[in-house]
Amino acid sequence: MTQYFFILADSELELVPSEIVNERCILNNARARGKAPERMLLDASHHHPAFGKLPDSERRGRPDIVHFFLLLCVDSDLSAEGKLRVFVHTRNNDVIAIKPETRLPPHYPRFVGLIESLYEQRVVPSKENPLLELRQGIQLDALVNAFKPDAVIAMSADGEEVPLVEKFSSIKAERVAVIIGGFSKGDFKSDLSKLKARKVSLGKRMLKVWTVTSKVLSAIEQAEKAPPTATPKPSKSRRAPKKKAK
Amino acid sequence: MTQYFFILADSELELVPSEIVNERCILNNARARGKAPERMLLDASHHHPAFGKLPDSERRGRPDIVHFFLLLCVDSDLSAEGKLRVFVHTRNNDVIAIKPETRLPPHYPRFVGLIESLYEQRVVPSKENPLLELRQGIQLDALVNAFKPDAVIAMSADGEEVPLVEKFSSIKAERVAVIIGGFSKGDFKSDLSKLKARKVSLGKRMLKVWTVTSKVLSAIEQAEKAPPTATPKPSKSRRAPKKKAK
Repeated sequence: MTQYFFILADSELELVPSEIVNERCILNNARARGKAPERMLLDASHHHPAFGKLPDSERRGRPDIVHFFLLLCVDSDLSAEGKLRVFVHTRNNDVIAIKPETRLPPHYPRFVGLIESLYEQRVVPSKENPLLELRQGIQLDALVNAFKPDAVIAMSADGEEVPLVEKFSSIKAERVAVIIGGFSKGDFKSDLSKLKARKVSLGKRMLKVWTVTSKVLSAIEQAEKAPPTATPKPSKSRRAPKKKAK
Repeated sequence: MTQYFFILADSELELVPSEIVNERCILNNARARGKAPERMLLDASHHHPAFGKLPDSERRGRPDIVHFFLLLCVDSDLSAEGKLRVFVHTRNNDVIAIKPETRLPPHYPRFVGLIESLYEQRVVPSKENPLLELRQGIQLDALVNAFKPDAVIAMSADGEEVPLVEKFSSIKAERVAVIIGGFSKGDFKSDLSKLKARKVSLGKRMLKVWTVTSKVLSAIEQAEKAPPTATPKPSKSRRAPKKKAK
């Protein structure tokens, strides 16, 4: 069985940075939520007036992207079959590990609250039941290498444009790391050259992170079902008998 | 070219119903948001304490499902290629038509605000530029029949379990309606028997609406690329030259 590791890399998830913690929109939002400003997640939609003072302001504060990515992953067939482990890596090299049995809140404000609790407690819901776990100061290459992957695929606009199902079917590996950028604009901040990653592009059109995630999941699920490297019989149906990709 | 019509059916999107409009949690939420209670969307997460008084309380108040469904649809290849029109049908037979060029807010609270505006104005952002349009009192069968579909597929747990790519490849039709249930629990409230729908199931596991949506989009996109009804050549690659499904 091939084990897949999905890493949402350089995702725009962070607490409100200290340099804007006293901005009016932050303070107002903190008061409305009954939270300390520095314990809130930065949110481009709520905190936009303060973003002028932040570098990279056009891409920061997007917990919504992380939320959708995780909702798609944890409900996928791949995860249900025990073949997927999911990790969120952030711009500040924070890493969140998500246990496959986690039931994430589909409601965005609740998800934000959950991640804020995670930043306070390091594990949620509890140490005895660590469904989500936060570790800090872990660079992307250290995270990926920790999985001891036989193959690393990075979804990247400057990668090779190759059909995804074929790509995943052709991989002969027991441990496959898949890197998806967790940002809406720009490029990876992490240095991908430190990883022996095969870069794969989904084409010219700029896709949302959830679209990329959905395509990657579907391609792997299909590659796992019917690897096209096997010679297909010239029949009406293209489905090969269910077998493993390796 | 095949034109696809996606309908999120019986989705749990509605304004706060009059029977709970004076409940404390509703009034508190309305005050915090500076909104009239009856102009807010019902939200299971915010308004749960009042749900005991509502029939079907275990499934109601899920704008998040509609949000995620729409985000996946509008960013899909199918939509980008002009082959997809998307409609939301609700438990109260409200219908929201979404123009393909709509850029929906990925931020959930903003999406809720947008739909609340839609319920006040019937079109948003404006009559001159009706990206979202609301019509009321349209039953599911009337909506689907209005598209004059040659084929209707309904994703349903009690349907035939058949591989989706094969299913969509085998459809010889110019106008295909695809019905996806917009609820987290239970079954369709609308009477599907009024439609000549072929029911298709994705298997035993109860899937989230976004997973179903993602699978249907991927299957159609793949069927459009390489219909398996064409006799495949016994080569290493299973890709047929890009051509239309019909």
